[in-house]
Amino acid sequence: MKISIIGVGLIGGSMALKLKEKNLASFIYGIDNNTQHISDALDLKIIDAGVDLEHGIKNSDLIVLAIPVDAARKMLPSVLDLVSDQQTVMDAGSTKAGIVHAVKNHPKRSRFVAFHPMWGTENNGPKSAIAESFSGKAGVICNKEESADDALATVEKVVNALDMHMIYMNAEDHDVHTAYISHISHITSYALANTVLEKEREEETIFQLASSGFSSTVRLAKSHPEMWVPIFKQNKENVLDVLNEHITQLRKFKSALEKENYEYLQELISNANRIRGILR
Amino acid sequence: MKISIIGVGLIGGSMALKLKEKNLASFIYGIDNNTQHISDALDLKIIDAGVDLEHGIKNSDLIVLAIPVDAARKMLPSVLDLVSDQQTVMDAGSTKAGIVHAVKNHPKRSRFVAFHPMWGTENNGPKSAIAESFSGKAGVICNKEESADDALATVEKVVNALDMHMIYMNAEDHDVHTAYISHISHITSYALANTVLEKEREEETIFQLASSGFSSTVRLAKSHPEMWVPIFKQNKENVLDVLNEHITQLRKFKSALEKENYEYLQELISNANRIRGILR
Repeated sequence: MKISIIGVGLIGGSMALKLKEKNLASFIYGIDNNTQHISDALDLKIIDAGVDLEHGIKNSDLIVLAIPVDAARKMLPSVLDLVSDQQTVMDAGSTKAGIVHAVKNHPKRSRFVAFHPMWGTENNGPKSAIAESFSGKAGVICNKEESADDALATVEKVVNALDMHMIYMNAEDHDVHTAYISHISHITSYALANTVLEKEREEETIFQLASSGFSSTVRLAKSHPEMWVPIFKQNKENVLDVLNEHITQLRKFKSALEKENYEYLQELISNANRIRGILR
Repeated sequence: MKISIIGVGLIGGSMALKLKEKNLASFIYGIDNNTQHISDALDLKIIDAGVDLEHGIKNSDLIVLAIPVDAARKMLPSVLDLVSDQQTVMDAGSTKAGIVHAVKNHPKRSRFVAFHPMWGTENNGPKSAIAESFSGKAGVICNKEESADDALATVEKVVNALDMHMIYMNAEDHDVHTAYISHISHITSYALANTVLEKEREEETIFQLASSGFSSTVRLAKSHPEMWVPIFKQNKENVLDVLNEHITQLRKFKSALEKENYEYLQELISNANRIRGILR
């Protein structure tokens, strides 16, 4: 099938590479305001042509929105305005309640499938795209009952081709879970980077000493605000809820240390170790 | 040379493997209260013999303490009591001021070299040992002026054989820097695991959705309390200092979200992104 990817970055580019490799995509149109991204994506054979939005939509069986969540939410209604009942539209955003709500009463709602691939890195742009990115990760489809059967089947074919394991979920539940599983990790990592940058003025020392543990905890702090501010904005209530809990948990460590209550510290750590049984 | 490794776990085991591979160690004695560790280490050819402390010390050119920092601090004086001026003792602990202080006035102080390899994983025991662990990481030697030249030269040979880049540092400075670079990452990760475990009662959902970002941020939360409680205890003041700053930084994110001040949120994230230039 012919696919339009709106936003030829890390996610859109990685999807394009894999769908071509699996021969699910016969032709890929790239649509991106950033002409450098189009040019890089052409060079890297991620897309077959760079086109404008109308041209892409008109000529594609499937249209993928892989742009920041606020932009996707804003653009989706006008994309749906242009599609026929033979075409499918999907997104790839990290928040789902907002976008699903934005098209709830759209006459073409059933052509849209709300999707979130649980993968990402701190990098962006088509040069960061990797075909194997999604393999083995969760691909979440939200509110499937609001999508037409054939549109859903098309997206399920895509998720299978990406080698993801499929999960169906209500959009509100999705946003609660991702606040825990993904969004809070980013805030923690940003705050950790800011802590180190605030306290440790000798940047050369950070670089020289940085251990693998530090690098892995702080890796997400490299993620761009263009992507993450809209996510936090759209998932504000859930993120705040988890952030408050996280600060409470950190205060327990603070209190254990201040009171030199090392039995309590041991308890806190042993409890955290339970994550071993869950994340293998 | 003949080497005694006291504590045949992740760190001691990994050192043993590499030093044998590099032919720096002609024979390795393993000393460990945990008989399973001795038996595993023999099976894995990490050590050549399991012996008691006295036998190991008596027959070795180099004695390596690779046990939790509180145990090392406690044991070091009695190890130094047993060594001659031809033998060298080193440790591998994550805090340095305490151990250096404990032997400051010991008559054999100059036979000891305080060392910290900036590497570790969330795993423990000899089965987790990896010869290449230390390659390219920082190997910190503290208060080198308190060690005899030949003892220092022996440890430098070890650090080179481990393929680490050597850094010399004052023990107090070391403990300040590692609070930022390593210790706070562990507290953050533990607290993040506890947050998720507290809020997300559906463990199956965590497991199914867990993204690579979450896994990397929470990986350190698998680290054992037997190792980490003593580290936090010995570096309490520095860790509390950084922890307070970290909570302050998290509160800034909370405030930006609560006030819907997304320009400020953008600023906080852009500032954190500076870590890109430092951690490549």
